[in-house]
Amino acid sequence: MTHLPIALDAMGGDHMPEAAVLGARQAHERGIPVVLVGDAERLAPLLAAGGPELPVEHAGDVIRMGDDATQVRRRKDSSVMRCMALVKEGRASAAVSMGHSGATMAAALLSLGRLRGVERPAIVTTIPSERGPVALLDAGANADCRPVHLQQFAVMGSIYARVFLDRADPTVGLVSIGEEPEKGNELTLAAHRLLKETAGVRFHGNVEGRDLLAGTTDVFVTDGFTGNVMLKLAEGEARVLFGWVRDALASGPWHVRLGALLVRPALRSLRSRMDPHSIGAQPLLGVGGNVFIGHGSADATAVLNGLATAWRAVSANLTDRLGAALLELAASADPVEEARREPT
Amino acid sequence: MTHLPIALDAMGGDHMPEAAVLGARQAHERGIPVVLVGDAERLAPLLAAGGPELPVEHAGDVIRMGDDATQVRRRKDSSVMRCMALVKEGRASAAVSMGHSGATMAAALLSLGRLRGVERPAIVTTIPSERGPVALLDAGANADCRPVHLQQFAVMGSIYARVFLDRADPTVGLVSIGEEPEKGNELTLAAHRLLKETAGVRFHGNVEGRDLLAGTTDVFVTDGFTGNVMLKLAEGEARVLFGWVRDALASGPWHVRLGALLVRPALRSLRSRMDPHSIGAQPLLGVGGNVFIGHGSADATAVLNGLATAWRAVSANLTDRLGAALLELAASADPVEEARREPT
Repeated sequence: MTHLPIALDAMGGDHMPEAAVLGARQAHERGIPVVLVGDAERLAPLLAAGGPELPVEHAGDVIRMGDDATQVRRRKDSSVMRCMALVKEGRASAAVSMGHSGATMAAALLSLGRLRGVERPAIVTTIPSERGPVALLDAGANADCRPVHLQQFAVMGSIYARVFLDRADPTVGLVSIGEEPEKGNELTLAAHRLLKETAGVRFHGNVEGRDLLAGTTDVFVTDGFTGNVMLKLAEGEARVLFGWVRDALASGPWHVRLGALLVRPALRSLRSRMDPHSIGAQPLLGVGGNVFIGHGSADATAVLNGLATAWRAVSANLTDRLGAALLELAASADPVEEARREPT
Repeated sequence: MTHLPIALDAMGGDHMPEAAVLGARQAHERGIPVVLVGDAERLAPLLAAGGPELPVEHAGDVIRMGDDATQVRRRKDSSVMRCMALVKEGRASAAVSMGHSGATMAAALLSLGRLRGVERPAIVTTIPSERGPVALLDAGANADCRPVHLQQFAVMGSIYARVFLDRADPTVGLVSIGEEPEKGNELTLAAHRLLKETAGVRFHGNVEGRDLLAGTTDVFVTDGFTGNVMLKLAEGEARVLFGWVRDALASGPWHVRLGALLVRPALRSLRSRMDPHSIGAQPLLGVGGNVFIGHGSADATAVLNGLATAWRAVSANLTDRLGAALLELAASADPVEEARREPT
């Protein structure tokens, strides 16, 4: 399984196919096998320009950012649908796309289906915190959620934190507007009661907006609306605050500008910590295969990082482990199935 | 009206009554009249210790952070309820409390009622952005909202931006998960359609999490759950990022530490820009009087700043102007009343 290449959508995204070819070559050099999925005629000259030869799977169509996500249903020759087909046919171990994220999700659901026990797949994102990286989900796949969806996100997030963040027994926080169980909206009040009773989830209780960067818990569970607003606020604020620091240092008197020269490298490494391109692509948890979604603005470095992230997931059997944990959850919710299970 | 003092809840909050007395004295020295509302026996020695004499209105009870907000109904002698009574009786121009914010809201609704046309009062908060301060509401008063509530927040936020942020014709953004009108959750999809048709609101369209610190619009409208998560995330992230900057500079080699010494004052002024104490208290928009809610952690400086904010609102007739704008909205929604209105 881990010897199969990763199918990279070489067409979806702002800087494709150039960034895809460059990033895939860098991944290849690091031992990550990649198959480029896209327009063979456009890819040929880029590949001919030198560097290692990479396999190409032709796809004659591409879903653009402005297209409706549901078009994947009848555009089977689109690069993102071809990626999913390779995974489904057992010819690729994962699919990675920097294109239209709604279309990627629709294509994954259509081609690979959902894991048993998952009603809604979720995008999980990793946020740097004071206590190291933490997982936030759903980061935007489901704008409206029910309590049971948040419960499934908590199970999937716990597995993700074990596999990706090396946490032996990760804590899960429910994003709300007060630490007390009785603070929240209708969704979180009901989800809180459900999470308290969920086997396999080490539930910390409610967490607040300030807890995300503080890293109060390993996993932050929320609906896809709130999660997407949080992710984009966190990224945007880092950009603005580091910009303010840069401007304050550049416009000060001579001794401040001298000081700024001396501290510049230290500040630069901090900025890269908050740069979304450093992770490259985020897993779509809950579909029947390894699927990764990146920013449309991805450059070659982001493509390389996204492929490396996908390769870690493949090597760690992320999807299989998710499937097993979800079966446990389903069994514990169903007494008959519970009785049938082998004792663990 | 503007000669009436501001009623300050001298008991509610972590550092009361000491911070209240100190802050009120500093406000008094700047020409802002204040009446301290709280336990006269506890206040007397603090006032006797020197400095200008301030009027005291006795309140024998105080709502604590752990109390249920609805207790204000039967605890009429609590400091927060006494503050509202002073406003209602025309003996104070505004009420300011750093105590239990839910109790302050409940007390305000119970004593002062709502402005006509407002179903749900909202807490508005000011966020520093790249383009200057912007307003975010609701910051936590209403965890679950309907589209019409967001419409009323947009009207109130527009008036607030005119009066407090000096914007002649403020733009309003609806917080969502994509710029396109068809992106969002059920609440924002319906609110988007409503806001497009709302007279008196210059609707920009959807905005995203990243737009808050970028200051894309003057007003950001959202439900109280999302708004509270955004506010606390923004404050918490600033604390963490500036902490990282401090640590990176303090732990570097000698030339970095030298540079850090030189840039320290420039960075300190940046940090204060993101400090919630610099505003002190936020208006509760939509109740029948000027009511301001501050952080429980408020110190004397936060009390002073909160009193100054309240004094600006009183001087600018914020509540009267809100009332007039809301009547306009109600009239435009009602064709019969519309026909009765004077042409503008």
